[in-house]
Amino acid sequence: MLLNSTKAALIDKILMSPEYGYTLEQLMELAGLSCALSINQEYFSNQGNQKIFIIAGPGNNGGDGLVCARHLKIFGWEPIVYYPNAEKLTTKQPFFGSLVKTLEEMYGICVIKETLSAEKLQTHLDDHKFVVDSIFGFSFKPPMKQGVYQEIVEKLVENEGKFKLLSIDSPSGWDVDKGPTSNCHKLDPDFLISLTYPKLNSKFLKPNSVHYCGGRFISSKFAEKFEIIPLNYDKGSLIIKID
Amino acid sequence: MLLNSTKAALIDKILMSPEYGYTLEQLMELAGLSCALSINQEYFSNQGNQKIFIIAGPGNNGGDGLVCARHLKIFGWEPIVYYPNAEKLTTKQPFFGSLVKTLEEMYGICVIKETLSAEKLQTHLDDHKFVVDSIFGFSFKPPMKQGVYQEIVEKLVENEGKFKLLSIDSPSGWDVDKGPTSNCHKLDPDFLISLTYPKLNSKFLKPNSVHYCGGRFISSKFAEKFEIIPLNYDKGSLIIKID
Repeated sequence: MLLNSTKAALIDKILMSPEYGYTLEQLMELAGLSCALSINQEYFSNQGNQKIFIIAGPGNNGGDGLVCARHLKIFGWEPIVYYPNAEKLTTKQPFFGSLVKTLEEMYGICVIKETLSAEKLQTHLDDHKFVVDSIFGFSFKPPMKQGVYQEIVEKLVENEGKFKLLSIDSPSGWDVDKGPTSNCHKLDPDFLISLTYPKLNSKFLKPNSVHYCGGRFISSKFAEKFEIIPLNYDKGSLIIKID
Repeated sequence: MLLNSTKAALIDKILMSPEYGYTLEQLMELAGLSCALSINQEYFSNQGNQKIFIIAGPGNNGGDGLVCARHLKIFGWEPIVYYPNAEKLTTKQPFFGSLVKTLEEMYGICVIKETLSAEKLQTHLDDHKFVVDSIFGFSFKPPMKQGVYQEIVEKLVENEGKFKLLSIDSPSGWDVDKGPTSNCHKLDPDFLISLTYPKLNSKFLKPNSVHYCGGRFISSKFAEKFEIIPLNYDKGSLIIKID
């Protein structure tokens, strides 16, 4: 059983409704933490600090990436965050501004806020073995608009195989229900962390990719209501690796 | 090196200052999660659901307890929350109301909001092998005022040894700097989870007690600024057991 985009949006909305009381800050903290835990579990190396380039998009998927960056730093990684349109986005949504502030001021993480030229972006990609795609999530609908995000996704496709590409919740550009349809940019991530519950497009991941789920927000009562089969997390674990 | 109460309060204040950008929702989520993770790590049993009675005080320590209850439930425990003065507290601080809402509506956790008689409280204590003291934290200064919290603490002292008593951040009633001074009610917890960093009073724990720390909010830069020696967490771990 996998979630379609309508159900994913509905669950997100209901989690934050007055009836259930979750706040965006809580959900994003736990989601971003799950991303960092799963990346760390899968790719942890004892050989010193590991550099990771995190690309944050304009919405909540980007916010998850910002939180993920902080926890990875706490776990000993060396993240750099690329957050195009940061000024506009953090003005519109001050909480994203707070997330950036914590990254920069508390943890000394470099957050690139201006739009990088193709050459400069290439230099960053060349410099990293791990790149996180937290550009678009479950609310994205193709086709992708022309502009900075589309250029980034094309660059990621162009560089396929040069680094591990790690997608958060949905590979950016994919249709959440139909996967990499012909009018989508064909990212092919090596790793996906589904948040709350896997979406329909996760079945289009390439054979050797790694798939985790995190964000244990769904109670048994809620699962029943939404006809979801609960995932079999280990007791005390915040993430689960899906076969 | 241990934190005194002044430094603990200062660190908390600065974490949530506009300079560093943390919100109460984020800190409380991570703090309460650390409590649940450490309790689960220490006392996890495979023999079915484990009942746990969580007593939440009027301030942020109580809020940590509310978050802890949720995560314990997600991990498979069976928490009951005792939250005296709930109506007054959640009116004053709506976020606490949201935390209660999530517990009740999403997870079906029983939250007792009225003040229990001594007899009824005793019945609950008799029914549990684990009791969480999230009544007062690092901002408590003795003596304890007469009233419901003092009565609860006296009841906990009276029942010593009948259940595992688990304190969050500071044993309630203890002076944060001086420990269980003569004018403090002498709780003697079996388990303490220090949040952010251990306080001075943690050195007064009884010999066989268990001590964890969680809430990894202190960056190396911040540690230097406050002359704190960072704890040696395992990479990817949110809690650490302290010898």
